This record gives sequence, C-alpha cells and structure tokens, in this order.
Amino acid sequence: MGLVVQKYGGSSVADAEGIKRVAKRIVDAKKSGHQVVVVVSAMGDTTDELIDLAQQVSPIPAGREFDMLLTAGERISMALLAMAIRNLGHEALSFTGSQAGVITDSVHNKARIIDVTPGRIKDAVDKGAIAIVAGFQGVSQDSKDITTLGRGGSDTTAVALAAALDAEVCEIYTDVDGVFTADPRVVKKARKINEIPYEDMLELAASGSKVLHLRCVEYARRYDIPIHVRSSFSGHTGTWVRNQPEGAGMEQAIISGVAHDTSEAKITVVGVPDKPGEAAAIFRAVADAELNIDMVVQNVSAASTGLTDISFTLPKTDGHRAMEALTKAQATIGFDSLRYDDQIAKISLVGAGMRSHPGVTASFFEALSNAGVNVELISTSEIRISVVTRADDMKDAVTALHTAFGLDSDSDEAVVYGGTGR
Amino acid sequence: MGLVVQKYGGSSVADAEGIKRVAKRIVDAKKSGHQVVVVVSAMGDTTDELIDLAQQVSPIPAGREFDMLLTAGERISMALLAMAIRNLGHEALSFTGSQAGVITDSVHNKARIIDVTPGRIKDAVDKGAIAIVAGFQGVSQDSKDITTLGRGGSDTTAVALAAALDAEVCEIYTDVDGVFTADPRVVKKARKINEIPYEDMLELAASGSKVLHLRCVEYARRYDIPIHVRSSFSGHTGTWVRNQPEGAGMEQAIISGVAHDTSEAKITVVGVPDKPGEAAAIFRAVADAELNIDMVVQNVSAASTGLTDISFTLPKTDGHRAMEALTKAQATIGFDSLRYDDQIAKISLVGAGMRSHPGVTASFFEALSNAGVNVELISTSEIRISVVTRADDMKDAVTALHTAFGLDSDSDEAVVYGGTGR
Repeated sequence: MGLVVQKYGGSSVADAEGIKRVAKRIVDAKKSGHQVVVVVSAMGDTTDELIDLAQQVSPIPAGREFDMLLTAGERISMALLAMAIRNLGHEALSFTGSQAGVITDSVHNKARIIDVTPGRIKDAVDKGAIAIVAGFQGVSQDSKDITTLGRGGSDTTAVALAAALDAEVCEIYTDVDGVFTADPRVVKKARKINEIPYEDMLELAASGSKVLHLRCVEYARRYDIPIHVRSSFSGHTGTWVRNQPEGAGMEQAIISGVAHDTSEAKITVVGVPDKPGEAAAIFRAVADAELNIDMVVQNVSAASTGLTDISFTLPKTDGHRAMEALTKAQATIGFDSLRYDDQIAKISLVGAGMRSHPGVTASFFEALSNAGVNVELISTSEIRISVVTRADDMKDAVTALHTAFGLDSDSDEAVVYGGTGR
Repeated sequence: MGLVVQKYGGSSVADAEGIKRVAKRIVDAKKSGHQVVVVVSAMGDTTDELIDLAQQVSPIPAGREFDMLLTAGERISMALLAMAIRNLGHEALSFTGSQAGVITDSVHNKARIIDVTPGRIKDAVDKGAIAIVAGFQGVSQDSKDITTLGRGGSDTTAVALAAALDAEVCEIYTDVDGVFTADPRVVKKARKINEIPYEDMLELAASGSKVLHLRCVEYARRYDIPIHVRSSFSGHTGTWVRNQPEGAGMEQAIISGVAHDTSEAKITVVGVPDKPGEAAAIFRAVADAELNIDMVVQNVSAASTGLTDISFTLPKTDGHRAMEALTKAQATIGFDSLRYDDQIAKISLVGAGMRSHPGVTASFFEALSNAGVNVELISTSEIRISVVTRADDMKDAVTALHTAFGLDSDSDEAVVYGGTGR
C-alpha cells in the first residue's frame, strides 16, 4: 500500500480530546499498512485569538511579523498531535512548513507555493514514522522568512505534499460528512455527493461552497491528486473529488449541486456614456484599488439618451473601498451616479453534464419563476449558471432549483448519465 | 554608541499593554543612539499552559515534540513585540533561535549553546532595524531539530548574543528593581545592590537567589559581558553585575548579600562503616539515578562502633528517587538506616570581600547563635558560608545575618572596602 496524506482542520483538533481522537484515526491508517503524512491546522480558535492580540498591539501589523505570529498556532497543534500519537506507541515526528520543504514566494499573508522539497518527510516515513506537518505555512525562497499561505492554506499544503510525495489520496478531514448538493442548513433534503469531478468542485468552491477551497482543488486538478473529503467525527465515506476514468461505468449526475453566496454586494454605475473605453475606465478605477470583481452586466443603452448602466458584484468587505474609488473617478469617467446594494444573494447551479444536456437553462429559469424569485443579474459558464437575487429570496431559490434538478435526497428522479457500458 | 542586548521576561510582556510598554522602552534605547537587540520570553503563563496541554495528550511527552511545542510561546511574543515597535514608527524584525544562529547540542529540554552565529541579526541592526530574538530556543547542530535551553534559557540566550555581537551591556529586565542583599519578602530592610562582581552573583544564584540564573552569570563571566538587571516597570538603575577594574575607586561591600533556599531536603545515611569507599558507594548510587546533590557532611565516627553518619542535601523534587536508589543499594553498601527531612532551609552569606577579612565566620555564627538558630550542616567556599537550619528558623536567621553584616537599608554601618584612592 502507498502513502496517504491526511489533513485535519482546527475544529477536529480543538482540544486535548480532539487531538487524541485524531491521533487514533491516524494510527488506524498506519496500522492498515499505509505510510501516513498528516497536515494539521491550528487548534480551534487559536488563529483568531492571535489575530486579536496582533490588533491590540498594532492596527496594521507588518506582514512578516504577522506570519511569524500566526504560524505559532500550527506549531502547537502539530507538536501535541505528535505527542498523542507517540503515546499510542507509534513513532511520530512533527515538521514546520519550512522543515517540510514548503517553499513559497515572499508575499506575506498570502504566499503561493512555488516548490515542495519534502526530503525530511520522505526520510521520516521511510523509517516507519508518521510525519506531522504544519499546514498553512512555508518559507520564502528569497528571504528565508516564514510565510503563510492565506485562506485555504492548510488544504493546499496537504494537496501540495500529496503531489510531491506521489500519494494515493489526499484525505481532507472536516466537521461535515463531505460535499453536499446544497448547504444542508438551507436545504433540508441536501444530499452528500459521493463523487464529483474537479471542474464541478472548482465551480462550486468559486460559487460559495465552503467545504473545499478553490486553491486546493486547482492544485489537485493540476497534479491529478484524488481528494477524499470526509468527517473526522465518523468513519463514513465522504466525497471523492477526482476525474472519472474515460468510459467509466459509474453514475454521474448532470448537475452536481446548487451553491449560494451571500457575501457579495452589487454596485451599479448609472448613466454611463455608451462609447468605447467607458467600461474599461470604470474597471480600471476598481482594479487600481486592488479590488476583485465577480459578475459584470452591462444593460443595452437607451437609444434616446445614449447612456447605459453597468452593474457588478464584489465581496461586501471591499464595497466601501470600491465606492470611494469610483466616486473619486466620477468626474474623469463621467457617469451620473452610483448605487450600492448589499442585500443580494448569488445562486449558482453547477454541473459538467449541462454541457451535453440542452434545456438546463430553460429549466433553471422556469424553476425560479415558479418559486416567484426575481432575477437581477445573470452570468454563465460552460458548466455553471449563476444569478443574483434578493437576499431574502435565497432560500426559496436554492430549494426550488435543488428540487427541480432532482437533487432532493428522497427523490427517485435524480438525473444521471453514464451507467454501465457507456 | 554601541550595541545593547535587552532581555524581557514573561511578566514584562504578559499582555498587549505590557508589550506596548516594553516596545516604548526599546524604542527609547534605539533613539538614544544604540543598536538594539531584544531577547524575549513567552507571554505570562503561556509556557505553563502549553505544558498543561502536553500533559493532557501524553504523560511523558517526547523531548523533540515538547521543544517544538514550547518554542511556539516565544514566536508569539516576539512577533507581537516587533509589530508594536513598528507601530511606533521604527523598523523591527523578529527571529527564531534558529534564525538568530543559536546553535545547540541535541539534548532536548535542556540543550546547551555550542555556538552563536548571529549573521542575520548583525545584518538587521546594521540596516538600522531593531532585532527581536526568541529566548530559550535554538537549533541542534546535528539533527537541525528545534531545541529549548531549559531553566534560565532566555537569560542565557541574551548573554550569549551579547557575547557574539560584542555588546556593551546585556540588560536583563524583570519585575523587580534588581538584585537585593536578601529576599525583600523575607527581610524588610533588604537593599538593592548597585554593583556586584560575577563571582558573588554566581554564589548568590547558586544559593537560592532567583533573579539571575547561574548559567547566564557563568556565561557572562566567561565572556566578560556586563549585565544590568533592572525593572521593566520603572526607569531606575538596577544592579550591575561585572568585574571591578583593578584599583577602581568604587565602594564595594565585603558582603554582597544573604541568600536562602527552602527547595532542598536532607537525607542522612545512618550507621555507615567508616572505611574507604563507603562514601563513594553511596554517592555512586545517587549519581546513577541522575540526581544532583548539593551539600555533603560526614560526621566523625564514633570510636566505639566504627560507624559514622553521612548527610547530604538535594532538591526536594529528587528526594523520592534518591531514597529509592539508596534503599535498593542498602544491602550492598551496608548501612543501618536512612532519614529523610524536607523541613530544612539553607542560608548562605556571600561576599568576595570575606577572603581578605578575617572574622567573618566568627561573626556569622555569633549572629545565628544570638538569634537562637540551631545549625545542622555547614559548608563553606572561599567567598561563601552556607548552613542548614530548620525551615521555621529561616526568616530569623536571614534577618539576623543581614543586620549583623550591616546590610540593612537604614543602617549607616555598611561595611565597605575600596574607597577613593585605593
């Protein structure tokens, strides 16, 4: 049997009991004959507590020092986890990101992995030890300073190590049973997805699904590392994220799931002269403020006025800065006014199967219409349809789409393709 | 002006307020024209909390992992301190023990420094930055694993860096005003010592004075680094630990102070045959159990029996193991019985001046006798007299000696030597 990389999040190792429970699970994997490398996050709220301390001493902490501070959290959890495993009679060695060979660029707080040289990890597992690695952290190639990888960093560490160590699978342990067809807190009949291709998982993650981070899925797809998302509190099989072998016989739904995102706001630029370069000037102003925009829609201009409106969405947390940047540029660009709206929800239907199945778009809008949900913006990709609605309509919209596409857990009408012999 | 190394203990950086106060003091040193290197301990009770967590997951944590765990504490405090300094408008960079070039042997939990290569620290201060270094930690030369230096480790880090960087002074900041002629909690008239030679400070530290650790004083003496022990809560001058230049004109007391230690126990081996090799066999048995003994006294043997008693003291925490080891060896060695007594105190009078001043020993025992204190064991060095008394007599004994040797703060009779022109 080969090598397995397991990643445990902060909620799985929130206290001594959690650490001991996780240690047992790791030892079970080792006993089953695998070489085991474990990536671990900081315990429970440790990172938040450290951020809070940093805010108390400095309103805008320096990136280098902030990274040094935050990485203390994983040092604590990884050392405790190694101790707990040794206490069960198995050899375990903990390694910082730097010791594990996670080499990054020098962008503090959101460094990108540029190389993984896991020589010490390989040595440790070859000698029969379980290697425990601090997630979320690395060391910069140029300055040799400690860096952190930003959001989703521990998942990305796990997938990157799995790739560098040629692991059979990267298991991401979390506090839910896997990836669901919709958020179970919103849709009671949401169903655990057993198997999902990388591209669908990428779209779900980009559309508001919180279970896996976009970055880690991108990394896994690039290196073709199967991810198994599962609960650290149960022994159940979770969700496998991987490509289906060509001509595989497994059933695969046309639609993987419905995601929602209520973290965005909508800005409408009203009365923009409809001539070349105007939209570019608007988005340049936003980009210069280092803000990322998501959906963009431009109305057809009214023939009578020669003016049009441009709407776009962006994270609520960036809303204030975007409004400021645009207000400053108003005279230069020459538009009438700005409207800000943070009472919106983005609803997305995701499925690689919709490529080959016409009619999905029609069914989508029929379902929303029947549920009385009004659509404000639309944006589509080859395997995703996203709309913006009122925030109040989110639950109705997600539930209606979930039912309409046969995703409800007690439904016998799940739309499938594939099947034996295809 | 040259380079100053400052060390701040955990009580000085116990919370955000403490960190900000310390940051201001560091910046003041920088503004006065010094290059500044700061060594910092973990915040307040952090280390104890981490030890507690370790106990919860493993009764006997592995040394390597334990060190990895504990070193997280200094990472937190040093990063926060660097942020707080930057917030005051000064450049500050934090470094782990490893990054600062603190190279140790591989003995986890009590590693010894074998080399200091502070290249990155030098670079940082040469560029005008304040360097913040994690105390108590290093990296092993052989395995490249993280190590901790054990008790007094942060003070030792500071002195070792001061030596490697050829600093003018190593300032040890603490929560008291300096080194006192006796513990102020025991003797109300205890006086702050302004200046004390290394050898006296060594004897005081070895005799129970808690302000500086023996190890750090030894290191400072070897490299002739002046130590300035002072409070981080006031601007007062503290205690200078350094050698007097030959023929210096400063006043120097014959006696530096009175130390006490109630952390030891006394074991008496009763009825030992008075022949060569018996004492050696007893202490071999104790040494084989890896226990350190302090004072040793052998009675004159009674002519009638040819038997003698041997008494020695050792830390109470080692008492149980020592009794076990001796009991096991009783048949081989051939003594009658063992007596264990942990209700003792060790009282020590320390002063390099006693070398050249006869009569100190006589005054010492007269003072104790007048105070009605019975002496059980005696041990002397060239510059120290130590006795063991009942624990209940400790306060009376220390107070009597303090007064007898003119150390009381409102006394005009302080015995001095040196003086102008000598």
